[in-house]
Amino acid sequence: MATTSTKPSVSFIGLGAMGFGMATHLVKQGYRVTGFDVWEPTLSRFVAAGGLSASTPASAVRDSPLCVVMVATAAQADSVLFSGDAPAAAALPQGAILLLCSTVPCAYVQGLATRLRPDVRLADCPVSGGAARAADGTLSIMAGGSEEALSAAMELLRELADPAKLYVVAGGVGAGSNMKMCHQVLAAVQILAASEGMGFAARLLGSPATTLPRARDAVLGSPESWAWMFENRVPRMLEKEGLGVPVASALTIIVKDAGIITSEARRRGFATPMTSVAEQVYFAGVGRGWGADDDSSMIRLYTEGEGKVGPVSATDYDDEGKLKLVLALLKGIYLCAAAEAIAFAKRCQLDLDQVYELCVNAAGGSTVFKNVGPEMMKLCRGEALVALEGGESLGDLERQLQEAVAEAQRLKVPVFLGSQALSLIRLALQHAPTNVEKLPRAAVTTLWGL
Amino acid sequence: MATTSTKPSVSFIGLGAMGFGMATHLVKQGYRVTGFDVWEPTLSRFVAAGGLSASTPASAVRDSPLCVVMVATAAQADSVLFSGDAPAAAALPQGAILLLCSTVPCAYVQGLATRLRPDVRLADCPVSGGAARAADGTLSIMAGGSEEALSAAMELLRELADPAKLYVVAGGVGAGSNMKMCHQVLAAVQILAASEGMGFAARLLGSPATTLPRARDAVLGSPESWAWMFENRVPRMLEKEGLGVPVASALTIIVKDAGIITSEARRRGFATPMTSVAEQVYFAGVGRGWGADDDSSMIRLYTEGEGKVGPVSATDYDDEGKLKLVLALLKGIYLCAAAEAIAFAKRCQLDLDQVYELCVNAAGGSTVFKNVGPEMMKLCRGEALVALEGGESLGDLERQLQEAVAEAQRLKVPVFLGSQALSLIRLALQHAPTNVEKLPRAAVTTLWGL
Repeated sequence: MATTSTKPSVSFIGLGAMGFGMATHLVKQGYRVTGFDVWEPTLSRFVAAGGLSASTPASAVRDSPLCVVMVATAAQADSVLFSGDAPAAAALPQGAILLLCSTVPCAYVQGLATRLRPDVRLADCPVSGGAARAADGTLSIMAGGSEEALSAAMELLRELADPAKLYVVAGGVGAGSNMKMCHQVLAAVQILAASEGMGFAARLLGSPATTLPRARDAVLGSPESWAWMFENRVPRMLEKEGLGVPVASALTIIVKDAGIITSEARRRGFATPMTSVAEQVYFAGVGRGWGADDDSSMIRLYTEGEGKVGPVSATDYDDEGKLKLVLALLKGIYLCAAAEAIAFAKRCQLDLDQVYELCVNAAGGSTVFKNVGPEMMKLCRGEALVALEGGESLGDLERQLQEAVAEAQRLKVPVFLGSQALSLIRLALQHAPTNVEKLPRAAVTTLWGL
Repeated sequence: MATTSTKPSVSFIGLGAMGFGMATHLVKQGYRVTGFDVWEPTLSRFVAAGGLSASTPASAVRDSPLCVVMVATAAQADSVLFSGDAPAAAALPQGAILLLCSTVPCAYVQGLATRLRPDVRLADCPVSGGAARAADGTLSIMAGGSEEALSAAMELLRELADPAKLYVVAGGVGAGSNMKMCHQVLAAVQILAASEGMGFAARLLGSPATTLPRARDAVLGSPESWAWMFENRVPRMLEKEGLGVPVASALTIIVKDAGIITSEARRRGFATPMTSVAEQVYFAGVGRGWGADDDSSMIRLYTEGEGKVGPVSATDYDDEGKLKLVLALLKGIYLCAAAEAIAFAKRCQLDLDQVYELCVNAAGGSTVFKNVGPEMMKLCRGEALVALEGGESLGDLERQLQEAVAEAQRLKVPVFLGSQALSLIRLALQHAPTNVEKLPRAAVTTLWGL
């Protein structure tokens, strides 16, 4: 309090893994930050880190022109703003800026805009990047809102974001949430894909302790089967199937994000077959009581069959052949995830170039998205399909994926996402003009009825 | 042996639940039947029932002009015919008729035709109907083969089949297996649908012991949510989730049939998104070690989440409203199963009228198939879509199904098939001409690129 900071004071509601890092980063940058969280020990830690604490949302926000809400769900946001004990909305000072950084449905944040006092300005600015980047002030942030709201929020957003990863998303309140949601299509599918790919590898190759590191290296070293989520989740999987490490991201978190995608898709009558299958598999995990476990531990669903499925008649592939199947499975999944994310972004009227730039460098990134995404976007803009001059066709990829799914069938190991990707690619081929051998891989996007 | 039967002598390989009933029925009808099975106690029972026993396939077939093979899989058929101990094929008498009654892939039986001695005539005649009808001689039989082979096999087929359910399927060897396979699309999806519908009901309504019988009654009494598999499987589910009754049909059996469908679909580049999802879920059950359990016990996968999924925010439906969701879920699944079966039958060049007649009266039957199937077949024949004059549109059904899937999401109960059906219906709507409100439900079939 001895410093006479020229920086505005900030209230911060929600000091979980992400919020605590963001709020303490602001403290380090010289902001006077008043925090609130329902969990008392976090508040004490925050005070020890130089923050101020409040005992209710209302008392936290009362004296600050800027209020950041970083709780886990829309229901929690609604509670701290409107319905809980001493809620914040009515206590916001005249002309306050409310930054909602939680991942919530577009419909929720748009509704919120109509429920706040007219003098309060809302910035819809979900974040991405994990706890370490939150604490470093190098998050990805997708900000939507009126020009006035965004310009008033910009100083604070610049403190929290990596300058290269602060995206102003055109379309007003809701657009930031839509951008995050379309990115999460990739995240929701690819988190499970890491478990499915490694689980399939474990059943194919046997002796997981020695073979899984090799499978990981094969995937990470391959030209087109890399994905950020795979690289991030697999090290945790290698520690007792995700149960031998502290929980970095609980299964319930991605279940929540998948639910935002599928419920928004329902509202728009849009099909999300990849995310929907992933969501059902996540529910199966939650039903086992795994909700609080690290999401990488979903690999258990694939490995548990070892020795329990009765006789199997595996093909006589050598180890290199087996690893190729794993690569093909992942490549097929990533292709369909990319198509679903881009087609959904188009439906949400997002700027596709911005979607690409954001996703390719974020947790949803994959080599397939990077390579095929631009052509998918052309199709979404109504450009005609261009016959393939060389390289891998959609038919080529179908054959590789088919070989992987067929071998999984022989081993009686589920490959929910790989099987779904194969169905979607086949449906797209069945709709395609005659010469499917010249059909580029991006053509799978046409299944969404562009 | 005192009787001087004019009936030909028959060899019978494979005296399992189905084969034993069929073979003893033939004995009762006055045939001299020589049986073979790898399981010795069955052979003794067969002798006690008036049959003769052989110690190898070769010795069983040596003296009979007719040979029935009723083993469980193509691999078993191949072993008894060609590769096992004293195999049968080489020992068949000159001009013998081989009736392959096992459910096998079309590709297998077509390959078999080329491997037999030219004088041996092959009838491809898979059966359906369960052990009781096998023993009564009232099976459904789908027979393909040359005119000569079928006419030579006909007397025996008539003994085994219900006269109204003996189908000669045009197209030669392989056509019978294709017909059975297309029927099994309905079976594979609808066996799991029974578990999914009842599992969803259990989580919606709570107190399964009292509420599941009500849910069953609601489904069976509804105008369009009835299916033969539901009526057949649910009584077993009500006995300790399918574990309190003798195994009537082990999970591994439908896993095998699903595998025939998806592997034949792969061979033809055809998409089977409903069967493929069902197959993956079955693999998840097999991976739990449930392969030998009754298939109705798959309900466990849906009910086990009760109390384990954390807080849920269920909608405040009354019981009638909840039951409506269950009906909508099943109706949506049956619609997509019907579309997949009929589109696949078209791809297999089967006579669609015959497919309809067979399926509507068999274990794959459902009210939705009965009501919507004829219009799906018209679309498959290239007739134009006719705008709806009244009744339920595809959009109407989408909304009902969506409500069910959304509530399942709130309860965190997986609905793999319902969610898949919703994705497929939405993809079809995204491809549809503009006025989707007048789109008949049969239009979902167009997703298969007719």
